[in-house]
Amino acid sequence: MATPINLSESESQFFQDLVPPESFNIKKIQMEEFTKRHSLLKNRVVLITSGGTTVPLESRTVRFIDNFSIGTRGATSAEYFLKQGYAVLFLHRHRSLQPFFQRVEKNILDILSVSENDPTVITGEISYPSLAKSLAPVVKDYHKYKNEGMLSMVEFTTLTEYLILLRAASEAMQACGREGMVYLAAAVADFYVPRGLMPEHKIQSSEGALKLTLEMTPKMLKPLVKEWSPNAFVISFKLETDQSLLIEKSRNALLVYQHQMVIANILETRKKEVFIVTMDAEEILRLSDEELAAGREIEEPLIDKLVEHHTTLLLS
Amino acid sequence: MATPINLSESESQFFQDLVPPESFNIKKIQMEEFTKRHSLLKNRVVLITSGGTTVPLESRTVRFIDNFSIGTRGATSAEYFLKQGYAVLFLHRHRSLQPFFQRVEKNILDILSVSENDPTVITGEISYPSLAKSLAPVVKDYHKYKNEGMLSMVEFTTLTEYLILLRAASEAMQACGREGMVYLAAAVADFYVPRGLMPEHKIQSSEGALKLTLEMTPKMLKPLVKEWSPNAFVISFKLETDQSLLIEKSRNALLVYQHQMVIANILETRKKEVFIVTMDAEEILRLSDEELAAGREIEEPLIDKLVEHHTTLLLS
Repeated sequence: MATPINLSESESQFFQDLVPPESFNIKKIQMEEFTKRHSLLKNRVVLITSGGTTVPLESRTVRFIDNFSIGTRGATSAEYFLKQGYAVLFLHRHRSLQPFFQRVEKNILDILSVSENDPTVITGEISYPSLAKSLAPVVKDYHKYKNEGMLSMVEFTTLTEYLILLRAASEAMQACGREGMVYLAAAVADFYVPRGLMPEHKIQSSEGALKLTLEMTPKMLKPLVKEWSPNAFVISFKLETDQSLLIEKSRNALLVYQHQMVIANILETRKKEVFIVTMDAEEILRLSDEELAAGREIEEPLIDKLVEHHTTLLLS
Repeated sequence: MATPINLSESESQFFQDLVPPESFNIKKIQMEEFTKRHSLLKNRVVLITSGGTTVPLESRTVRFIDNFSIGTRGATSAEYFLKQGYAVLFLHRHRSLQPFFQRVEKNILDILSVSENDPTVITGEISYPSLAKSLAPVVKDYHKYKNEGMLSMVEFTTLTEYLILLRAASEAMQACGREGMVYLAAAVADFYVPRGLMPEHKIQSSEGALKLTLEMTPKMLKPLVKEWSPNAFVISFKLETDQSLLIEKSRNALLVYQHQMVIANILETRKKEVFIVTMDAEEILRLSDEELAAGREIEEPLIDKLVEHHTTLLLS
């Protein structure tokens, strides 16, 4: 169906310069086994990327450029995809939010107590019954999906690690054919410092003002759609601060990369409003302030919609 | 004892440009009450700064420059200071590691189970008794220090927030006089983009290579030592990638800023080797590979030493 293309010269050069991260081979096998197993089980599979990437400014890295993202969108979406029966391959930034874990970090030590009779017994019922109660379904869900093998986690930190793992992950998604979805929620750096231009040691602050020149990161969405995951349902994200550019830029991305869908959002309102943009239509999903205050999450209706779209496509 | 100085012109200008973070006043009062209370209780108090700072590149921020630090040094040091009887004012980067919490994040959901009889009862004993056992002392310590009011946490994210809070925190430390210690473990950005030079919206990647000019951040150690916390025992950190510069740069900092001590370390070996540098002496602390493998932490002997130094100074 898809026409194979060659990477442009700059993209090939970019990949040649990349050094695979430690444990790359283990992660690659983990991802391939995951997608193959779920393909055999006839489960739909979604590859979710989540969190920001870092761009080192020195080769022994003290400083780097980072993107704003702790990974709320990706981690929360993963939970709703699991609830819809999708197996989730979760490619995420080290220390960004993780599905289920994101809901316990804050107060966990306040909830727990050590039994006075047996110091190996930790219980959650004593201090704050209401918190323990809200935690209980999270603990249950986590164990359920873990025991069923529905969630596989793979970590990255730098832009380089992300790109190499993204290629391997989306190639692994070929096992799922059209049952596969690629949901690119990670905030990927648009600019990087080519390895040849990077100083080895920490840039000394005594040297005065710092001048940096960063090159544009080649867009990987094109090879992803054409070569790595040609049959998957591919969804990219567009985060802007300026409403006026949002829909136009989203549709432009669809034209250029030929994928199925863009989720567009504005930095300030991203938790209550998202646009689902396809070539023919744009759909807005919005939570009221009351819904937000009640703890409802925009990812719930969003994932509902995406699963609907995916089903429609599979039936067509 | 200390001669009051005026901030240099660039430092004053820098502070004038800063916009206090949301909830600044609440945090200021929290810090002042904490140091006053412990001063009355005759407790020694340490202000610990921890984690990296971000430097926004756009005023509605999508991108920023960050420093490598998840805050292990600060969070771990805080625990050992608490064990030595110090009250800890913990000024830390949002989402960086926190004392005690840092030891539970990883496996917490694997440890917990929901009781089958009562869904509001969560217990840690079933799944992994050995993990629950290692968690038990952490839970105990956390509740002990929390109940005693020995730990106060204040968060920052950007360089601006950090500097404004650092000034307020170290001014609050005046209440503790010589019983106070300032332990500057945060990785503070050396460079920033002045507000006037910052674009409002997300930098568009279609505009080609990105050229950035960053100004040097004024060094706040000088006003901290001379004006904000003139009686405290002040310890700064020096992290380098190049061993050859380490001790010389540390001693140079002591000369320039006139504080008591620099903890110097090299990026790659910072978990097993630190240098305690004063004007007259340098002392090395080192863990063997066996000690590291057994879970011993360099912060334990380090804090021991610092408390010894502090005691000696108080008796002199």
